[in-house]
Amino acid sequence: MIDLTPDEFRRLGYLAVDLIAERMAAQPDLPVRQPVPADLRDRLMSPPGATTADPEALIRRVAEEVLPYPMGNGSPRFMAWVNSPPAPLGILGDLLASAVNPSVAGGDHAATYVEHGVLHWIKSIFGYPADAGAILTSGGSVANLIPLAVMRHCKAADDMRKRGFNGEDFPMVIYTSTQGHSCIQKAAELLGFGSAYLRKIPVDSDQRMSLDALRDAVEDDRAAGLRPVCVAASAGTVNTGAVDPLHAIADLCAAYDMWFHVDGAYGGFGILAPSARAHYAGIERADSIAVDPHKWLYVPVECGCALVRDAAAMRETFSLIPPYLRDDRALPWFSEFGIQQTRGFKALKLWLTLQQVGTDGYSRLIENDIALAGLLQDKILASDDLELAAAGPLSVTCFRYRPNSEMEDGEIDALNRALLPRVQESGEAFVTGTELDGRAVIRACIVNFRTQEAHLDRLLAAVRRAGEETLRADGNSRNRL
Amino acid sequence: MIDLTPDEFRRLGYLAVDLIAERMAAQPDLPVRQPVPADLRDRLMSPPGATTADPEALIRRVAEEVLPYPMGNGSPRFMAWVNSPPAPLGILGDLLASAVNPSVAGGDHAATYVEHGVLHWIKSIFGYPADAGAILTSGGSVANLIPLAVMRHCKAADDMRKRGFNGEDFPMVIYTSTQGHSCIQKAAELLGFGSAYLRKIPVDSDQRMSLDALRDAVEDDRAAGLRPVCVAASAGTVNTGAVDPLHAIADLCAAYDMWFHVDGAYGGFGILAPSARAHYAGIERADSIAVDPHKWLYVPVECGCALVRDAAAMRETFSLIPPYLRDDRALPWFSEFGIQQTRGFKALKLWLTLQQVGTDGYSRLIENDIALAGLLQDKILASDDLELAAAGPLSVTCFRYRPNSEMEDGEIDALNRALLPRVQESGEAFVTGTELDGRAVIRACIVNFRTQEAHLDRLLAAVRRAGEETLRADGNSRNRL
Repeated sequence: MIDLTPDEFRRLGYLAVDLIAERMAAQPDLPVRQPVPADLRDRLMSPPGATTADPEALIRRVAEEVLPYPMGNGSPRFMAWVNSPPAPLGILGDLLASAVNPSVAGGDHAATYVEHGVLHWIKSIFGYPADAGAILTSGGSVANLIPLAVMRHCKAADDMRKRGFNGEDFPMVIYTSTQGHSCIQKAAELLGFGSAYLRKIPVDSDQRMSLDALRDAVEDDRAAGLRPVCVAASAGTVNTGAVDPLHAIADLCAAYDMWFHVDGAYGGFGILAPSARAHYAGIERADSIAVDPHKWLYVPVECGCALVRDAAAMRETFSLIPPYLRDDRALPWFSEFGIQQTRGFKALKLWLTLQQVGTDGYSRLIENDIALAGLLQDKILASDDLELAAAGPLSVTCFRYRPNSEMEDGEIDALNRALLPRVQESGEAFVTGTELDGRAVIRACIVNFRTQEAHLDRLLAAVRRAGEETLRADGNSRNRL
Repeated sequence: MIDLTPDEFRRLGYLAVDLIAERMAAQPDLPVRQPVPADLRDRLMSPPGATTADPEALIRRVAEEVLPYPMGNGSPRFMAWVNSPPAPLGILGDLLASAVNPSVAGGDHAATYVEHGVLHWIKSIFGYPADAGAILTSGGSVANLIPLAVMRHCKAADDMRKRGFNGEDFPMVIYTSTQGHSCIQKAAELLGFGSAYLRKIPVDSDQRMSLDALRDAVEDDRAAGLRPVCVAASAGTVNTGAVDPLHAIADLCAAYDMWFHVDGAYGGFGILAPSARAHYAGIERADSIAVDPHKWLYVPVECGCALVRDAAAMRETFSLIPPYLRDDRALPWFSEFGIQQTRGFKALKLWLTLQQVGTDGYSRLIENDIALAGLLQDKILASDDLELAAAGPLSVTCFRYRPNSEMEDGEIDALNRALLPRVQESGEAFVTGTELDGRAVIRACIVNFRTQEAHLDRLLAAVRRAGEETLRADGNSRNRL
């Protein structure tokens, strides 16, 4: 009733593969995404399981009710958030991993060694030693949470695992920039530091953490009797792709005996792009790094990675196996280095695409995304009705539609906020917005091996059309035009 | 270089499906698992990506180097830990999910609604209201962590998110049994409570939490000025499948104003088995429940689930969207109810198998696992050389090989510890051991829709053979026989 014969599996597997291949073939011309009809939404949300269905009918139901309503990131015209299309070989990696279905808590089976293999590669990219601590995670949030837990363990005055915060007398303080990702706040809250002890340091004109402001904040907190313990720098902010001054922050952390963490969830692998590489100088000095292969290495979600230079500290933070029971002849279990016990075989999709593409291939793919962002910026700069708001060294472009040079900032904000849903609903392109220095901007992030110049043109045309429609729909604005 | 044409994807997808189907056909007769040869281990652990390879060659490499060395839980003779074989339709669910590749952080796309659908089903199974908070997780560890974070938020004296533990004057205390899963300790440590404030309450002769001991511990802690805040009960311990007295614990939590959490990662879905259902009375009163569809619903890893009765409290614990910016016409995002921002489409595999099997079908499958455990226990009781050590109401059996009734406890311990690696290496069956009341026992857990009576016989034969070999290898013991 739940098992399938090998022949049934083959038949249904071929069907699923066919449906995916058909979708891949059609995708370039399809809307990036489309709203889910209300009746379908209700049907999908109703509890399954009351009645049974034939497996083939179920696969076909997926083709009719799920595949046509994706988030859209398989499309070459998707440039929202930081979501890449799935590498096709990575999709098959997930199929094969699910069929093996190991728990990669540890132990002597192939999946364990495959994960060690991909972790060795990631460590080498960032100049980490081969014996550094590392583990694949669900994504950037946990890839930041795990290192910050290790930091807490190392910086606590008392035995954090045993006594918790009950052994701490003075608040510990963490520093990130105003552009740092919200998952740093989530981690600070979950770990019991409290958001009031997470300082969001101002940024310079390039949206990078201000070193002077950081030093002042640390000094102020020390003077107030607090304990500065960690700087969580960004190697590629989500808003603009800014990379904080890593070497200088490393120096400051060394001077104040603070933990130096780098959130490279979006931008970490930008280090592979020759044009961006210099910005990462100093990352090899970090105590810990968070990266996301499911972003700029294009493997399907979920696949994040936490790196902690001091593997012993990482193990001490999480291992429930007392030292006297550890078998030093065997590899330690991954479950001793993180939060999960049962762990999926996320490594296989990455192992396959790493071998397919190769390190040099990734350098070219990532460089190409950055070059496309540069091209988009050139087009914006060459346009009278668009203004460039921000462009970091990576693949994010923030811009505004401004059809009339006399429009005031507040009007431009309102217009750019209002036109976004129209762009999204058009199916022509999918971008989201953000705020920079209090201004509303349109944000395009290219982590997409399918995007080409023509897609940039379609994006800008869609923005202009949505802007014009917004103005037409708004009587006051129309009169002004 | 990373993309595949639809035709290439189809060809390679067929190949991957064929390889999985061949493995499925061969599996019943293959060793449960086999050690990874040293040279292969070294090859798998070396960093990939230095050179590139043809995608077809890579898929074939998986067939040669990965598929033959699984953890073993696809085999009918695997009865270790709590790892089920993967439901074949669930494997295709992972394939399709990976091809769609959404982030199920939230938003208007099919994956969001599919997850709500399966969550509605899970809530209904446990008598939870449809508007309770729920989210799919990587597994049981995070499915326990999230509710305990909500508990901490609700029970903290001050504003935990803002001030962290810096606003707390008196230690909060959590209670679980000595048989509670180690992930409760991991959560207590990660959340900053400290393991010294996690009480491990003794169990009765059925391995269930002793209510008297629990009440005494709570009273002692209150008298000492500590704050008892939560009982984390087990609905199916991993060691023996014991279900704590849930109604009585609910009463006690109500009397002392404590949070009532139930860890049902292994056993939760045992509620669907008619023979076990009565043991779960009271679970519907829990403030939160952790369950694992990737255990007894047989879907491929990863798929856990956290349920929190008070959805508003769950959202208050995690949401980074200020209330004044929330859009009450749209569904809240999943990222407001947990730790992750980007989230994979874990729901699809569960949605497919739930519809294939149906609620009644799951009742029969789970009941069948319990019946097989009962049969194994009968066989042990009927054997002179085996003794039954523990058998809860679910599908775990703990037993010992004792070929000579005059052997002392210490000798039996040593023998049962020593024979286990031999059983595992035989490939005939895979079981692990545990400790119960200080004694070493063999533990067989059946969450396996492929296991039949003949496999139980092969397990017991393998245990006897391994035991005899162990004794032969040990001169002293041989003389005694």
